[in-house]
Amino acid sequence: MTERENMNQIVPVVGVVLAAGFGTRFDPDNPKQLVSVGDKPIVCWSIEAFERCERVSDIVVVVNAKVRGEVERLIAEAGYGKVRVVIDGGAERVDSTAAALDMLAAAGIPDDAKILIHDAVRPFVAQSAIDGSIDALDEYDAATVAFASTDTMLLTRDLGDRKVVASVPDRPNTFRAQTPQSFRFATIRRAYELAAADPDFHPTDDTRVVVDYMPDVPVAIVAGSETNLKITTLADIPVAERIAADLTHHMTREEAKARMHAMFAGAAAQMHRR
Amino acid sequence: MTERENMNQIVPVVGVVLAAGFGTRFDPDNPKQLVSVGDKPIVCWSIEAFERCERVSDIVVVVNAKVRGEVERLIAEAGYGKVRVVIDGGAERVDSTAAALDMLAAAGIPDDAKILIHDAVRPFVAQSAIDGSIDALDEYDAATVAFASTDTMLLTRDLGDRKVVASVPDRPNTFRAQTPQSFRFATIRRAYELAAADPDFHPTDDTRVVVDYMPDVPVAIVAGSETNLKITTLADIPVAERIAADLTHHMTREEAKARMHAMFAGAAAQMHRR
Repeated sequence: MTERENMNQIVPVVGVVLAAGFGTRFDPDNPKQLVSVGDKPIVCWSIEAFERCERVSDIVVVVNAKVRGEVERLIAEAGYGKVRVVIDGGAERVDSTAAALDMLAAAGIPDDAKILIHDAVRPFVAQSAIDGSIDALDEYDAATVAFASTDTMLLTRDLGDRKVVASVPDRPNTFRAQTPQSFRFATIRRAYELAAADPDFHPTDDTRVVVDYMPDVPVAIVAGSETNLKITTLADIPVAERIAADLTHHMTREEAKARMHAMFAGAAAQMHRR
Repeated sequence: MTERENMNQIVPVVGVVLAAGFGTRFDPDNPKQLVSVGDKPIVCWSIEAFERCERVSDIVVVVNAKVRGEVERLIAEAGYGKVRVVIDGGAERVDSTAAALDMLAAAGIPDDAKILIHDAVRPFVAQSAIDGSIDALDEYDAATVAFASTDTMLLTRDLGDRKVVASVPDRPNTFRAQTPQSFRFATIRRAYELAAADPDFHPTDDTRVVVDYMPDVPVAIVAGSETNLKITTLADIPVAERIAADLTHHMTREEAKARMHAMFAGAAAQMHRR
């Protein structure tokens, strides 16, 4: 085992769940992270995805101060044991990421910790996407979950008051960014430091901070899925309900199988004992 | 009125409906264009969108030879009066476009005709997208309907056997291509001629043929919509059914309004006559 592999066994793997946004297209008194799909608040689906993954050691939840009480109550009720802290985010998504990074630095988290930054409004992230992100960071200092585009994408430029096509990238090289977006702690920390010095800094995406400010760091693509959707408007809720129903059904079946397995194993043990 | 504006009054506006694909993920004996949503075969929805637009003068339907009989029967039954011809397409989408262009050339269509090339598997194209395409061709020689991406897009490159991020374009400049893609006849004809001379030619999209082979021709973006979706797999059918139900409901309401309007107009005429 190399030294790095050995270290991989013990570095913290931190899920940062960003739940500070207030979708303006949702009721401000009932922000979308707190809307229930499949009888569970969206933010709980997201936290549970990291809670359930055995390789994730710690979870940080970033909220808007207005819903802190409600989110803390939900976390306590559900008994999520990996949630270390709930902190206030900022006005923009990147402010919330920056707040989480500052907190992790203050907590003395090591440079090689694996940080998985996830949008709370992507409640159905697959375990394979989380596992893939953790694995990718063994080889790369940055990674992002993304889903291959089924549409041809067009890049545009402005011509007068009209958008015209600037280029048509090869479809196999076009991906829709999803989350988690994952980084070794020192890498994302450095990218945000460099960005903070740039008055024109306004990305909407953590991967972009690395791509723009640390262009020499390759960011690996980790396979996402169509079900890892971002809930943006109320129109997304029916689709989300269908995915939630499928997942719940699937999980229930898995649990039933595990229960049957345990019963038969118990019965077999009994028979051997005779 | 300028000479060009005057010509615009009389140039043919041809809708080319490409219905030759055989989605391998659908039953080959029941290709997706013939699947019904909202009790109407998908190909009929697409043809009707052009049939209904008063500014469209002619429709060409491109089919796979295997379904020609069925499509011709559907067209005759529905009584689509603008469908001039049903022709056989080719193995790839661009082969079907090329077949349509050859047929139009053989028919002696003028160079300034407006050609709107539409995928039959986008059954819910809005009238505003068709109108917008026809209008855009007054100013530009090429246009495409496209929908602004709500996701951050990633452009990738290969690094060993891994995809890594090459760049993250500004989101306001990323669009998902839809159809119709529209061209003055001489422009698309010339682009395909140039492409035919290139042994590496294999685009999946008509806009790209112009962008790649006639880079000096700006392609205008025409506003599409989320409902102008491409039906690719059976998983798209439930969403399509919902859109079809909404549209049918909307159209029924419009018709009811028009009927009421006619009744009141009739009653008013009666009253004036007394």
